[in-house]
Amino acid sequence: MNPDIARERSQASFSVQELINLLDGGKQNTERRRYVESLLSQEPLFQKEQDFFLSREEAFDLVGQRALRVFQIVKENKITSREDNRHLSRGIDLTLPSDLHRVMFMPTIKLMGTKEQQEKWLPLAEMHQILGTFAQTELGHGTFVRGLETTATYDKQTQQFVLHSPSLTASKWWPGNLGHSTNYCIVVARLIIDDKEYGLHYFLLQTRDLKTHQPLPGVTIGEIGPKTSRYYNVNDNGFLLLDHVRVPREQMLMGLAQVNSKGEFIRKSSKGGEKAVYAPMMLIRAGIPFNVFYQLSRAMTIAIRYSTVRRQSEIKPGHGEVQILDYKSQQDKLFPGLALAYATWFAASGVYKEFLNQSENWSKGNFSFLQELHALTSGMKAFSTSRALGQVETCRLACGGHGFSAFSNLPELHDLISAGCTYEGENTVLMLQVARFLVKCVAKGRNGSDLHSTVTYLKGAGSKGTFHTTADEFLDPRVQVELYREASFRLVTDTEHRLKAKVKSGIDPAIAFNELSVDLIRCANAHMSYLVVKYFIEALDTDFAKASHPIKSVLKSVCDIFALHGISEESGRFLEVSVITPNQVAIVRDQIMELFSKIRPDAVALVDAFDYSDFVLNSALGRYDGQVYQRLFELAQKSELNKKKVQPSAKKYLQELQKSKL
Amino acid sequence: MNPDIARERSQASFSVQELINLLDGGKQNTERRRYVESLLSQEPLFQKEQDFFLSREEAFDLVGQRALRVFQIVKENKITSREDNRHLSRGIDLTLPSDLHRVMFMPTIKLMGTKEQQEKWLPLAEMHQILGTFAQTELGHGTFVRGLETTATYDKQTQQFVLHSPSLTASKWWPGNLGHSTNYCIVVARLIIDDKEYGLHYFLLQTRDLKTHQPLPGVTIGEIGPKTSRYYNVNDNGFLLLDHVRVPREQMLMGLAQVNSKGEFIRKSSKGGEKAVYAPMMLIRAGIPFNVFYQLSRAMTIAIRYSTVRRQSEIKPGHGEVQILDYKSQQDKLFPGLALAYATWFAASGVYKEFLNQSENWSKGNFSFLQELHALTSGMKAFSTSRALGQVETCRLACGGHGFSAFSNLPELHDLISAGCTYEGENTVLMLQVARFLVKCVAKGRNGSDLHSTVTYLKGAGSKGTFHTTADEFLDPRVQVELYREASFRLVTDTEHRLKAKVKSGIDPAIAFNELSVDLIRCANAHMSYLVVKYFIEALDTDFAKASHPIKSVLKSVCDIFALHGISEESGRFLEVSVITPNQVAIVRDQIMELFSKIRPDAVALVDAFDYSDFVLNSALGRYDGQVYQRLFELAQKSELNKKKVQPSAKKYLQELQKSKL
Repeated sequence: MNPDIARERSQASFSVQELINLLDGGKQNTERRRYVESLLSQEPLFQKEQDFFLSREEAFDLVGQRALRVFQIVKENKITSREDNRHLSRGIDLTLPSDLHRVMFMPTIKLMGTKEQQEKWLPLAEMHQILGTFAQTELGHGTFVRGLETTATYDKQTQQFVLHSPSLTASKWWPGNLGHSTNYCIVVARLIIDDKEYGLHYFLLQTRDLKTHQPLPGVTIGEIGPKTSRYYNVNDNGFLLLDHVRVPREQMLMGLAQVNSKGEFIRKSSKGGEKAVYAPMMLIRAGIPFNVFYQLSRAMTIAIRYSTVRRQSEIKPGHGEVQILDYKSQQDKLFPGLALAYATWFAASGVYKEFLNQSENWSKGNFSFLQELHALTSGMKAFSTSRALGQVETCRLACGGHGFSAFSNLPELHDLISAGCTYEGENTVLMLQVARFLVKCVAKGRNGSDLHSTVTYLKGAGSKGTFHTTADEFLDPRVQVELYREASFRLVTDTEHRLKAKVKSGIDPAIAFNELSVDLIRCANAHMSYLVVKYFIEALDTDFAKASHPIKSVLKSVCDIFALHGISEESGRFLEVSVITPNQVAIVRDQIMELFSKIRPDAVALVDAFDYSDFVLNSALGRYDGQVYQRLFELAQKSELNKKKVQPSAKKYLQELQKSKL
Repeated sequence: MNPDIARERSQASFSVQELINLLDGGKQNTERRRYVESLLSQEPLFQKEQDFFLSREEAFDLVGQRALRVFQIVKENKITSREDNRHLSRGIDLTLPSDLHRVMFMPTIKLMGTKEQQEKWLPLAEMHQILGTFAQTELGHGTFVRGLETTATYDKQTQQFVLHSPSLTASKWWPGNLGHSTNYCIVVARLIIDDKEYGLHYFLLQTRDLKTHQPLPGVTIGEIGPKTSRYYNVNDNGFLLLDHVRVPREQMLMGLAQVNSKGEFIRKSSKGGEKAVYAPMMLIRAGIPFNVFYQLSRAMTIAIRYSTVRRQSEIKPGHGEVQILDYKSQQDKLFPGLALAYATWFAASGVYKEFLNQSENWSKGNFSFLQELHALTSGMKAFSTSRALGQVETCRLACGGHGFSAFSNLPELHDLISAGCTYEGENTVLMLQVARFLVKCVAKGRNGSDLHSTVTYLKGAGSKGTFHTTADEFLDPRVQVELYREASFRLVTDTEHRLKAKVKSGIDPAIAFNELSVDLIRCANAHMSYLVVKYFIEALDTDFAKASHPIKSVLKSVCDIFALHGISEESGRFLEVSVITPNQVAIVRDQIMELFSKIRPDAVALVDAFDYSDFVLNSALGRYDGQVYQRLFELAQKSELNKKKVQPSAKKYLQELQKSKL
């Protein structure tokens, strides 16, 4: 054990084990999680260090082997719960060839298929006699689903649908596991009957022969090329071009609408039922912030542990090199990220609870919360990924050169979060939807309508003028929430006002919305910042009410850092709406520096509480024992360029160079 | 040609060719640059698309072949100038095995060796009979050079130095080309004679046998493992552990100090001469912003061209999908980056001119500008890399999923700039040095001393209160400079004041500096922002004074965007020191939106003016002809996972899965 990191642990003010259990939701959950992880960590096949050195083909092969073994482990250990499966996939930390089969192919059949279709296809899928994926996005079409080009034209003669890609941009592009791993997929296509369009529908398509695995006639299929992330690079995200490929009429998923043999299109009536199709998307979005937490908290663990082990330069000349975490500039890089990680956890949990609560209403046929829930899950997805991206980048920079090495694992974590900013709803698009909801709420509130929980404040008249907040009051949670709420309220109402004025002056509402979109995104950010601060504070009041005093105390400081650093970092946002004065920004900054000093002794304990084993963390810099240099050295010996003491190409190069006297 | 991008070009307000020539510094320079690039682009060996699909070993081999061919090309075409060499290395876009030999090994011998040493070693190096690199950084030591552990102990008996790594952390780590490519290096080590230390000195060490290329006895050497960037991944950054390896006394570079045969240490007297050692470091730092410009401007070219070709979603429902660059939110992501690219170019040129001017003084023995020049080159290095990093990240996000593909080249550009934030002086460390210089200047100014050009303003009393800037005045360059200057002045003087107060209250000055380091970094940023705005504006007044009216006009708008967006983005900085009011922030934002509309028709022309051929750009999304989808499709066909229509591992996986009935 590195003595510096050992000392850090000995000086912690609270019991790390208690906090681990609290975050896991109970001691038994902690034990279960560790047990499930150990199922992988004890097997050589799952040791991640080998992954650093593989070519794409080797990695793709290895991940297939792992996927098979995971299935066996799941069977042997009767793993069924959502949590256990999450622990497993985190332990694997690479996409598997059957991921989309499990999370998209089968659920879509369940959701969109008729009973007969479910009975026919789900057992085949469950027994892996077919392996499927979900093909929606096209080369030229992502965000705007209505723009998809692939057609499914009904042929009455043969009672078949003819699936066709009318252009190159209609090529399906990006679907996970599509290139090589699967032999079936669900194709999203425009339904055409007798030259008339009936919108987008889902079609079951076989892409490859079940025995030979060769692409079927008319099917041009393959993989779309490399990405930087190890995780995504082993995924054979694919392309798919269809040349008049025929599927039987029964292979359109007809749960919500059907085409009968005569070619008549019949939409099934179901009171509000079509809205149920939004549920899976919302569920996925509500889950993303947990992944963001997972990635961000690993990055924070790596950067903070390393910063206590790394000694570099002197604060007082001649007094010896200090742990780099003792520099205030380093604390300023890492402690807000640590606070963001905790905030993300509590806010993700809050949003998820909200989702579960509302989906009960929903199953009772009450859809009034739908818009709000869409805004909440979308906003939280965009907010958490965007913020975490900046912080993980900062972690990499805070670890200097070693942070740039693949062995730190920080570049990989950066790329994972970067992908998260784009998939399942591009962040800017989502934030504009949140903003659209907010300005609607302002208008509704003005007209006397009630507003739901997360946006009630948009109705209130708000306080007037600047808050006369004192240094102490800035640490009062009620004051913190009020500052954020009021800043958001003023920004949103002002922007709604300007939007209305533009429309009144004769500008088309859609054009006006575009013209103000930068301000609207600012509104969405202000609103989400307010909600995250609120969720964080509320969780400490409720979930953690029974925690020991030391834990409550340190988390209170972490929460204060999150709330106050947000004000300092975006002081412009608060000053522009005159919620605070320039003088108060200075007070807030002084408070932040004091809070940094306060949590400094607990920094390692606060990341230890995320409880990542070295197996899961997979970072030379983040090792629990702090032996980072030994680990870097050990890994370097295994580098693909060190298989031979003399690289043949290096020797050849030198000899040629000498010979040619260049 | 894609019709959308063709239309963009037809509507440009200025002559792209004229701007290209202006940026190149003349028509003949443009022609020469294109000619030098064509030397590479016509050869299959240098086609970059193959690089996307190589394993590290394959890439390492390929880069050796390319390096040899480059030497031939250089010889055949008598390429000697710095500019031509820069064009070549940009065309190659990967590090070469002899890079450090050229930029560090030979220059260090020239600078630090005696005449005899130069005469002995330089011809060998020039004829590549030996190939060297420069080994300073160690596993445990980077920024704080005085902390290096490697020792060079003089043995009088044999008249040799014994080079030794006393611990694992003393292992040399990161030196480029050290792992396998080179057979010599300059080792930076602590000189010890009779148990007494004499500081750090440079020693010539042979690491590998000149014939067999095997590591020599006592030398443990190899490569440190993968990084994400293609550019850096082909570099065999190395480690080197020395076990009492002996070199003759003559292999200490003795230009500045010598050890005679009796073991006496003699520092050569040279009036201020030792300061000359800072020159190469400053020169390198002064050059980095040009590389940043190169990387950032390529990213902007890719993102802006793609944004005119990509159509997605509708602004007015039912009116068809629009070019995504028509969204204000997309303009807000890209136009400030475009402005930053131009600003970086003009500021880099300004700083470089300053460096050349001052180094003349210098060669005359006048070192009074040294500190300022250090602050200026360091600040510009840190400012340009940090800002560009954020913008390139934004480019990748602005291109959605396709931006995440390696084929976009955006992830690579991100990683290149990320590395730049760390090497040649870690950005935070540099910014703190800038800040230290600034607060010293304030104190000096108060004591009546003169202050040099870039910091003269720190002496002035500054204006009082808030500027009553009107909408039109925000477009006045003098007003823009004044706002930035005044904001920096107030921030720096206030911080210096607080620093003094802390010291007065009894806090150790070094501790006080650390406590205020976050504010000090803010000062350095404010100062650098002011300088960059100033350089941009001055360059338009001088270098571009003879440009045609349309070019002057469009660059004025670009400059306005840079200046005003900086105020909007960091409104807090300006509001906190009360240089502007909240109301004025709103005015600034309105101006920015108008400026966006103004340059929108010229966006493609403004990136075309960077004049990157498709060969240099190497991006499917950035293609000149806008045929991005065709190119993505074409590249995907070449993916390493598409070599076979059926991936054996995928088939095997599926069969196992079916067999096992998992």
